[in-house]
Amino acid sequence: MRPYVIVNVAVSADGKLSTRERRQVKISGREDFERVDELKAGCDAIMVGIGTVLADDPSLTIKSPTLINKRVKMGKSDHPIRIVVDSHARTPPEAKILHKGTGKRIIGVSESASPENKTILANHADIFIAGATQVDLSFFLAQLSNAGIKRLMVEGGGTLIWGMISEGLVDELFMFVGNIIIGGKDAPTLADGKGFINEEDFPVLEMISATPIEKGVLIHWRVKK
Amino acid sequence: MRPYVIVNVAVSADGKLSTRERRQVKISGREDFERVDELKAGCDAIMVGIGTVLADDPSLTIKSPTLINKRVKMGKSDHPIRIVVDSHARTPPEAKILHKGTGKRIIGVSESASPENKTILANHADIFIAGATQVDLSFFLAQLSNAGIKRLMVEGGGTLIWGMISEGLVDELFMFVGNIIIGGKDAPTLADGKGFINEEDFPVLEMISATPIEKGVLIHWRVKK
Repeated sequence: MRPYVIVNVAVSADGKLSTRERRQVKISGREDFERVDELKAGCDAIMVGIGTVLADDPSLTIKSPTLINKRVKMGKSDHPIRIVVDSHARTPPEAKILHKGTGKRIIGVSESASPENKTILANHADIFIAGATQVDLSFFLAQLSNAGIKRLMVEGGGTLIWGMISEGLVDELFMFVGNIIIGGKDAPTLADGKGFINEEDFPVLEMISATPIEKGVLIHWRVKK
Repeated sequence: MRPYVIVNVAVSADGKLSTRERRQVKISGREDFERVDELKAGCDAIMVGIGTVLADDPSLTIKSPTLINKRVKMGKSDHPIRIVVDSHARTPPEAKILHKGTGKRIIGVSESASPENKTILANHADIFIAGATQVDLSFFLAQLSNAGIKRLMVEGGGTLIWGMISEGLVDELFMFVGNIIIGGKDAPTLADGKGFINEEDFPVLEMISATPIEKGVLIHWRVKK
């Protein structure tokens, strides 16, 4: 058993998540922001990789008071559970994801993560151990399912998304393609990592919709295999 | 003066032009192929970078006899002029681009290209010299304009497209986004090279259309700056 997994990203027209320095840039506007806030509010948890925490220091909280109220009326916490995939327990103890907004946090680490770091982070988050030196994503998702997480949103970065996709752990993908070009062979993309070599390994998607919004297009894919 | 420049590419859903080994894979289908053949037939020349010649050995000829007939009736050559941007004159003398189909070829090289290579290639193509160690794209495009080329299509790869975009030499961009994920931090994308760091340098696009075709979506952009 694993949660239903939805990946949401905004990319430049040339497929980049950020600059080569991993500095986040504004790709989408208010309308897309509100869509993402609503998508988040409908999930039990939001997950990012440690690279994204170190580069962007996101809080992953819901921004709209209306959406928060709706969650509370349904008996849910203000915000979805915030999750970091962090093999070596490098999440800074002062990271916004651990402090902004009420509610639960989970950090997924590997067995090789420093015990000192784990002890410090355990003051702010539940620590789940999955995998020897890298987080075993399939196992971690099973742990999250056992913890009651049914619907999980993944926000990036490219390495985590690659890991999830290459292990067949993604069900849906929302991709907003914006009207700028960032460029750079070292700039992160939706799916980095090693990459596939052979056609038979490529995940195949089914397009649910392609909708022009603001100055770009939102492509909604279902992962077929 | 420079030609009107149209970039056409097919990318995977994660923005890759090919696998990390630069092996071309089937991203689009027959309908998109016919669109591209027609786009080509409407241009005076088709340009690729040397990386694409070495990896894919394309011929860049028009495939549809109907489109070829139409060109001939208009007093044009069967195929558009085929152009390689090849700073060091590394185009293999047996490359398909030099042999398949009738008509003119141009190879743009730098002053530092080997005289022997240039001499051999001059048997198959007009050699244009532009730039000291790398092809100076702005200068080369001015040379192409002087040679009568008004409408130029660029088919890749990521390094050439990056060069063209970063020097402000692109007017339109057709991007077919296909329904597969290739992945790989080293797989080529639409715009590789160094990449931009600052927002004020990002080329800004205006969306002309986003049309679902086959199993993907064709995004047509105009470059605003």
